[in-house]
Amino acid sequence: MFKTVSVIGGDLRQLTVATELYNDGFFVNVYGFNMDSIPQTVHNTIDIKAALDSDIIILPVPVSFDGIYINTPYIDKKISVEFLINNLNPLSLVFGGCISPGMSDTLTKKGIKHKDYMLRDELAIRNAVPTAEGAIEIAISETPITLHNSKCLVLGYGKVGKMLAKSLDALGAKTYVSARKYADLALIEGHGYVPLSVSEAKSRLDEFDIIFNTVPALILGEAELCKMRRDTLIIDLASKPGGVDFEAAKELGLHVVWALSLPGRVAPVTAGIIIKDTITNMLREEV
Amino acid sequence: MFKTVSVIGGDLRQLTVATELYNDGFFVNVYGFNMDSIPQTVHNTIDIKAALDSDIIILPVPVSFDGIYINTPYIDKKISVEFLINNLNPLSLVFGGCISPGMSDTLTKKGIKHKDYMLRDELAIRNAVPTAEGAIEIAISETPITLHNSKCLVLGYGKVGKMLAKSLDALGAKTYVSARKYADLALIEGHGYVPLSVSEAKSRLDEFDIIFNTVPALILGEAELCKMRRDTLIIDLASKPGGVDFEAAKELGLHVVWALSLPGRVAPVTAGIIIKDTITNMLREEV
Amino acid sequence: MFKTVSVIGGDLRQLTVATELYNDGFFVNVYGFNMDSIPQTVHNTIDIKAALDSDIIILPVPVSFDGIYINTPYIDKKISVEFLINNLNPLSLVFGGCISPGMSDTLTKKGIKHKDYMLRDELAIRNAVPTAEGAIEIAISETPITLHNSKCLVLGYGKVGKMLAKSLDALGAKTYVSARKYADLALIEGHGYVPLSVSEAKSRLDEFDIIFNTVPALILGEAELCKMRRDTLIIDLASKPGGVDFEAAKELGLHVVWALSLPGRVAPVTAGIIIKDTITNMLREEV
Amino acid sequence: MFKTVSVIGGDLRQLTVATELYNDGFFVNVYGFNMDSIPQTVHNTIDIKAALDSDIIILPVPVSFDGIYINTPYIDKKISVEFLINNLNPLSLVFGGCISPGMSDTLTKKGIKHKDYMLRDELAIRNAVPTAEGAIEIAISETPITLHNSKCLVLGYGKVGKMLAKSLDALGAKTYVSARKYADLALIEGHGYVPLSVSEAKSRLDEFDIIFNTVPALILGEAELCKMRRDTLIIDLASKPGGVDFEAAKELGLHVVWALSLPGRVAPVTAGIIIKDTITNMLREEV
Repeated sequence: MFKTVSVIGGDLRQLTVATELYNDGFFVNVYGFNMDSIPQTVHNTIDIKAALDSDIIILPVPVSFDGIYINTPYIDKKISVEFLINNLNPLSLVFGGCISPGMSDTLTKKGIKHKDYMLRDELAIRNAVPTAEGAIEIAISETPITLHNSKCLVLGYGKVGKMLAKSLDALGAKTYVSARKYADLALIEGHGYVPLSVSEAKSRLDEFDIIFNTVPALILGEAELCKMRRDTLIIDLASKPGGVDFEAAKELGLHVVWALSLPGRVAPVTAGIIIKDTITNMLREEV
Repeated sequence: MFKTVSVIGGDLRQLTVATELYNDGFFVNVYGFNMDSIPQTVHNTIDIKAALDSDIIILPVPVSFDGIYINTPYIDKKISVEFLINNLNPLSLVFGGCISPGMSDTLTKKGIKHKDYMLRDELAIRNAVPTAEGAIEIAISETPITLHNSKCLVLGYGKVGKMLAKSLDALGAKTYVSARKYADLALIEGHGYVPLSVSEAKSRLDEFDIIFNTVPALILGEAELCKMRRDTLIIDLASKPGGVDFEAAKELGLHVVWALSLPGRVAPVTAGIIIKDTITNMLREEV
Repeated sequence: MFKTVSVIGGDLRQLTVATELYNDGFFVNVYGFNMDSIPQTVHNTIDIKAALDSDIIILPVPVSFDGIYINTPYIDKKISVEFLINNLNPLSLVFGGCISPGMSDTLTKKGIKHKDYMLRDELAIRNAVPTAEGAIEIAISETPITLHNSKCLVLGYGKVGKMLAKSLDALGAKTYVSARKYADLALIEGHGYVPLSVSEAKSRLDEFDIIFNTVPALILGEAELCKMRRDTLIIDLASKPGGVDFEAAKELGLHVVWALSLPGRVAPVTAGIIIKDTITNMLREEV
Repeated sequence: MFKTVSVIGGDLRQLTVATELYNDGFFVNVYGFNMDSIPQTVHNTIDIKAALDSDIIILPVPVSFDGIYINTPYIDKKISVEFLINNLNPLSLVFGGCISPGMSDTLTKKGIKHKDYMLRDELAIRNAVPTAEGAIEIAISETPITLHNSKCLVLGYGKVGKMLAKSLDALGAKTYVSARKYADLALIEGHGYVPLSVSEAKSRLDEFDIIFNTVPALILGEAELCKMRRDTLIIDLASKPGGVDFEAAKELGLHVVWALSLPGRVAPVTAGIIIKDTITNMLREEV
């Protein structure tokens, strides 16, 4: 049914998406990659209008940083979101990561089918693996002790918390995990980590060598930071506002690493395969 | 607030519940245990009316097997559900496991507060640990091969599936897990097991040394059983109707073990502690 | 070079040896198996003299229990060791398990090449896996608690100690291991278990739910047993004299399981494959 | 018996040695640390003669890089080995790491007791943990894929090989380990990794995403390197000559990381504690 794909913009992950879709039998264009290392199997075009005439259009993550231009870090030329929408094949199926509500509305009004792969649970779950590995890498390089036998606290037991706790425990860290729900605490205990209620965790912040935050809320405010030891490393894995009061941490002389977008940085090929597999799942549901 | 507790009926798990509550500072009666090995710290009574006059009444799991009499396997005397309800301290808080809708209605009409600890997620999650250990014990004893290096399939990735897959993998089994949702398949892969969609699993049933079912639905019917090898062990952990067509399995000469109620059989003390901890959580929410 | 093999006597493990050697291209006789379930691929003979005329003769483990007759539990007829030696093809290569010094001398005097597969390290190491699984099975079935969260002590960190500690830890037990050498204690700590010197272990015997002995010496004598709790399960995996003063344990009311020869009992097929692989390694060194 | 300790020269590990010995009740001098961050509990001296008058003298690892001067990277002043020996308290007990044969001879002639902590097995075994973590850190940061699901080969199953294989497997890598002895191959299989004989490993070098060498011999020469994929990362953990023909690797465009002295670089505090614990063990044997 779908035969041609254009992968437009984005970072190295999108080149993996392109190559993998080629391997699955699609004819693949890429646009926005001014570099030598494009695999020969995909067609690197500089004709944006031709690129926009495919059955499937794959936009990057995020589709746009500023809401105005498409995210195309590897070329100088700027393509506006408006231009892209106006020149899209109206029968195409558009995939993108973090499509803004405004862009989504415009596409809907034009009757163009579009889907956001960043909203898919299986992508977020699989991305938790490279995120955990990135956090492990930071923890090894930023502390003068081994993870083995260190005392670690993971705040939150969602997708990232689960994978991170598993890796820490596997590497021999004394792994404590905090969560709110009794059911999560039971799951934490069943996996062999020490479960802590949120209040227990807050009252024991001074015990840990490394504290990883995965909760997207200001969980380590000034009051909590004050209780911590100066040699504790804090790694914040929560997106956007973050879970740490960075100002207060700075004043207190605490060592905080705010680690964002780890999958694309730590493992772009794996992260690209995850995006591609998710798009494949979405296409399968389409038929 | 609550001071006296009566633990009425049930098996060895309930004696652990009694002892643990005593250790937490309650005055504890037990009724229904005609045996020598009652811990001296709890008061073993034969006066059912006195027992029913406590602040907290803890009934067994299940409260009743037949709907008529309370489940009291360790004494000859039978206490009817009706008698119990009519003689309850009306201000008491009643806990039970698998309280029937009829009994619940009657208690509600009488204005007696009651709660079913078997409906709690944290209990089901923690019970998955002894269930998995019981399944491991059966798998070791019922096959002529080691779990290490054996090829195992776990059908379903719910509470029991999660713990069982973890244990099998930890013991060196090649662990495959089937699930329906993409998100679960991603989680399975993230934990290092081989994810299989339900249709993949069904088409590869002849590859496995041991197949564990955790799905409470007839998942291994005649059509599926026909495809299996004669030396494959099937362990069905799904409750009530079970997930295996036992008639068909028998005719085909397949070796099926239907393993029910493992927590109470494999680890009554641990299972008792789990019930007690759950009741403690419920009491905490009460206040 | 070698073409015909006779597998003479022994238990179900030897039938697996026979089948596996057939699969490798040998012509295989078995003698000593009066049963219906012999695989059709091997030739079940009742002619002992014909059996003794093969290129390779494989004797069971142990070759003989009493030093007089070959170990042939599945037939009534008794074959004496003397008869066997006198009727052996003098050019044959004889493999056996636990060949007695006397038998070995006689074979040497007759110029018959013979080798003991039970003396091989790789066999002992691989047998540690079914031994550990057997110990796990016993621990699950003989205690009223889960291994998960239980406190276990493994005495000795040799072949069996290593595999057992790994499995206990993997199942969530708090795993303590005692050893004499600093190097072993370092290895124990590196694997994430708690290392204990022998004197530390002896002074803390009352802390454990389960104690596994793997040391072939009387390590738990009356003095040590006196210190233990009555609800501690002792599983002795050490061969022959055993590591526990059973008389004293009985008087003290301690629960001791003496678990011998687990590989053949728990996983005869796997144990047979291990014997066969070891013989294959020995044949390879022969050429 | 021993009361005063001088820690002379070396890197941050030695400051941990000093602090930990102070915590054990010794009076501790340090010499060779021109920095502000010396813990106040130890006495930072600039009087080398006073420092050499202690009961115990602890020299760094290595004691000397060039055989002439003591290894004192944190001060400008140079102390010669000769000066040190001539001014040592003749009743002192000297500990050092990698003491040269010449220095050892001179000390022996002078009747000065001395011991090399780097020759101790428990130190080498415990150092394998930070070495493995350092290798994991490199593997995560130098590849565009996750360790999870990657295909890794560990050459050699000695101290480092054991810990590294454990960590890779724990993080979800498909872990292959090569060794020469059947007994080691059995141990590798028992731990759940894929065992490869050396010849099998050499014939399958093109299958792996990452190859870790732990064998101190030229194991990856030109012939082996030629067979490898260009996107395979090679991490050489073997000391001195190394196990890789670096010239050939460079010409072939292969990505090789030669990772030396990881414990001191990745985890100086843990590495210091390991040195201190080893010295404590050696002192205990002294008495």
